Amino acid sequence: MSSILKQRVRYAPYLKKLRTAEECIPLFKHGQYLGWSGFTGVGAPKAVPQALVDHVVKNNLQGQLGFNLFVGASAGPEESEWAANDMILRRAPHQVGKPIAKAINENRTQFFDKHLSMFPQDLTYGYYTKDKVGSPKLDYTIIEATAITDDGSIVPGPAVGASPEMISYCDNVIIELNTATPSFEGLHDIDMPVNPPFRQPYPYSTVDQKSGVTAIPVDPSKVIAVVETNQPDRVPDPAPSDDMSRKIAGHLIEFFEQEVKAGRMPENLHPLQSGIGNVANAIIEGLADSSFKNLNVWTEVLQDSFLPFFESGAMDYATATSIRLSEDGFKKFFDNWDLFSSKLCLRSQVVSNSPEIIRRLGVIAMNTPVEVDIYAHANSTNVNGSRMLNGLGGSADFLRNAKLSIMHTPAARPSKTDKTGISCIVPFASHVDQTEHDLDIVVTDFGLADLRGCSPKERVKSLIHNCAHPDFRPQLQDYYDRAVFYCEKKKTLHEPHILADAFKMHVNLERNGTMKLDSWDVKF
Amino acid sequence: MSSILKQRVRYAPYLKKLRTAEECIPLFKHGQYLGWSGFTGVGAPKAVPQALVDHVVKNNLQGQLGFNLFVGASAGPEESEWAANDMILRRAPHQVGKPIAKAINENRTQFFDKHLSMFPQDLTYGYYTKDKVGSPKLDYTIIEATAITDDGSIVPGPAVGASPEMISYCDNVIIELNTATPSFEGLHDIDMPVNPPFRQPYPYSTVDQKSGVTAIPVDPSKVIAVVETNQPDRVPDPAPSDDMSRKIAGHLIEFFEQEVKAGRMPENLHPLQSGIGNVANAIIEGLADSSFKNLNVWTEVLQDSFLPFFESGAMDYATATSIRLSEDGFKKFFDNWDLFSSKLCLRSQVVSNSPEIIRRLGVIAMNTPVEVDIYAHANSTNVNGSRMLNGLGGSADFLRNAKLSIMHTPAARPSKTDKTGISCIVPFASHVDQTEHDLDIVVTDFGLADLRGCSPKERVKSLIHNCAHPDFRPQLQDYYDRAVFYCEKKKTLHEPHILADAFKMHVNLERNGTMKLDSWDVKF
Repeated sequence: MSSILKQRVRYAPYLKKLRTAEECIPLFKHGQYLGWSGFTGVGAPKAVPQALVDHVVKNNLQGQLGFNLFVGASAGPEESEWAANDMILRRAPHQVGKPIAKAINENRTQFFDKHLSMFPQDLTYGYYTKDKVGSPKLDYTIIEATAITDDGSIVPGPAVGASPEMISYCDNVIIELNTATPSFEGLHDIDMPVNPPFRQPYPYSTVDQKSGVTAIPVDPSKVIAVVETNQPDRVPDPAPSDDMSRKIAGHLIEFFEQEVKAGRMPENLHPLQSGIGNVANAIIEGLADSSFKNLNVWTEVLQDSFLPFFESGAMDYATATSIRLSEDGFKKFFDNWDLFSSKLCLRSQVVSNSPEIIRRLGVIAMNTPVEVDIYAHANSTNVNGSRMLNGLGGSADFLRNAKLSIMHTPAARPSKTDKTGISCIVPFASHVDQTEHDLDIVVTDFGLADLRGCSPKERVKSLIHNCAHPDFRPQLQDYYDRAVFYCEKKKTLHEPHILADAFKMHVNLERNGTMKLDSWDVKF
Repeated sequence: MSSILKQRVRYAPYLKKLRTAEECIPLFKHGQYLGWSGFTGVGAPKAVPQALVDHVVKNNLQGQLGFNLFVGASAGPEESEWAANDMILRRAPHQVGKPIAKAINENRTQFFDKHLSMFPQDLTYGYYTKDKVGSPKLDYTIIEATAITDDGSIVPGPAVGASPEMISYCDNVIIELNTATPSFEGLHDIDMPVNPPFRQPYPYSTVDQKSGVTAIPVDPSKVIAVVETNQPDRVPDPAPSDDMSRKIAGHLIEFFEQEVKAGRMPENLHPLQSGIGNVANAIIEGLADSSFKNLNVWTEVLQDSFLPFFESGAMDYATATSIRLSEDGFKKFFDNWDLFSSKLCLRSQVVSNSPEIIRRLGVIAMNTPVEVDIYAHANSTNVNGSRMLNGLGGSADFLRNAKLSIMHTPAARPSKTDKTGISCIVPFASHVDQTEHDLDIVVTDFGLADLRGCSPKERVKSLIHNCAHPDFRPQLQDYYDRAVFYCEKKKTLHEPHILADAFKMHVNLERNGTMKLDSWDVKF
């Protein structure tokens, strides 16, 4: 027992439950239902998952020791090793990492993606364990802690995620106490689940309001093991902004300035939500350098790009369910703990992604799609309708409920053989995660389309002429003109489509490596 | 001035503003922005709209006196006359009536459908009037009242809808005092809009909780005219239940019983939301006759089918934004005012359809789609992707946020030439309003699919085998099997599709009058 562990575990009875990760292996049986802490690659358990996959590899148990695995969003690299060794039978609601996407797309893992705000609540409703034999609850929740309070409550690390719900809806808890990172105590505000008909309003009407507890309460008798970990989180370096992403950020910041001028936004805007990726990073960098002051953030994950934002004084307060930093980022964070911790709060994902609060605060939501169609339906998840990337995440929690719902994307992406072979503006989204009823603004490196109050046909105009890549504008216009002609005869002109042609750009990409068609008359 | 009018208008200064509808005509100019009260065909203004369309007809002003028209949902038959006379340039967020759908589908009216919970708030954000010259607010709100309080506040009739927001976000108000119906005073609980950053939680955590005001406050100086109407609401008789709809209701009630038994639902269920149509009516009838007791209703519209439900004692309390009754229904309602009014409350549509409250209460949502695809995306609005029916309504407000999200539909519908020519289960929804992330249960006259916790491929199985019409099962299974084969090679098996084939059933319907294909190899 390390002295730091002894110091961090302030509830003495847990010290009698200290186990090594290896000692936990016999607890696990094929087909069990597991909950892990973690969100966007941080705060997930490490030692026990690693011991289990080592056990599987060493004993050639691939396919014989698999689990129904639930994590708030994505876990760390241990999850990838599980996927590569066929240890994930079923997985929800979000994942990151090539091996896990591969397992899903090869049908070795049954995956479903669900709104991050809803997943934990549906878990506590018993919806995801309804076919389980015996107890209706998760068999084990494995949760990373950075401290244990006097009453045995669990202080999470850089992610709260779905841990409150998983702990409340499981038969046994295994705590991994991470001694490689400082304690995060004081950074969390945790609401434990209360289900209908007893649920009450969340009281939060400002980003910095707190009303929960600072650690996750747990019935100590459910804690069957405490394992020490000294593995820090391993997050890849953030995607750097580039010319394309800076162009998008420029269009957006100009738009924000216009909205303030028109009186539709206060001078410090409304709380910001920002997704992951280089465009999101460029926007946050751009805002940090802009004339906007006293900004606030209500989001699901904070990344390295936010750190200068804290330091510059442009931002007053930020709240999320996870702080996903690189090694350098975490070093900076802990070196300036007083500054950051006074401006930051981590909440459960049910709260960070709550439609109730997002709508109340009037959040500005910004996310990247795979593609958007000419009527403003967006695909966030499945390439060409079938190949899962990471899952829906919180995109729809935010885009449905925000005061301003923004999707940002490059106008075109390269295919293997064509530098602009993939248009991100298409006739018909090959998978729809965000509906036409949910988006206000679409912005690409070429420009911005303001869709508010527009009929579908009015949206087409600005999406093609402001947002689409010039290589695709004539082809998209041609689709639309033909669709109008086709639907004129049938008097179906609300949202003109030729369904026989709607996916031809996608089919051509699959078969000929580019979305550029020789002619709309091609038959597949 | 009728004596009943004098009695109903308790704020004397309004009596000086009495006008005939005809006297109001000169106020209206082409291109103005108008708000009307009303929701699902009741509570809309009648006299002024009728005078305006009569004026247009008489003077052949079709196309020269058109408006940007906003109504909470659908208005009464006057709206149809406006549409037929090209008086609606732009319309949101929902409509009912052949002439208005015709105007939209012939591109004479620019229509956009929007979540009914969001439309009024976005109106107050200035999103729908941002291109308006001059004042950013609605030029006129025409609102039907059944009484005026001492301070000039407006007591609505059978619909609250978007009236609070329209009245707060307009330059001028015209009140139509309807003396043909009794006063509805005491039936409403009205929350006036408060926008971010000042918005606070809605306090409601039970269906019968009230905290608002009983009438809509208005600045009396904005009221420029009070017009007497003596035209009652005219609502078609409700769609009767039939064998098909009773079968669906039977499957659902059996499912509810199982959920209670499994401990996932309390014995009195959770508050119910139910859409419009014969299936919805059959379900409410079925519940009224079932062993369920102490049920509650949190919905957007109450119809005739609910009346026996009030009387039988099976229901404790119901709340909605509109009570849409037939002539007989309203008679019954007023004859038993004490009974009904003690068990009923009408709220604004922002509240009745609020994601915040729907999620908090754990509502059971039930709505009818146009079609559902094999992965559980649903089309609520556009036939064959292009022809607008009525609009999204509140379907997505409820289905996204409910504890149980249910869509019910006949398995097949007739086409002109084939009694089962249209399958309501299709490979790919031709328009997506509800995503795969939003539906828990799909039920048809053939059976029920429980999609909770299922991966996309698991959903296919139950949707085809439990829900699809037997005429279409082999064809749908064939699509899926071919898609699996096609995606196996590409390792894109998360949601197997052949995009070149995905809409062939729809195209065949357009060209050959049935969704039944000779072969999946057909090329269009």
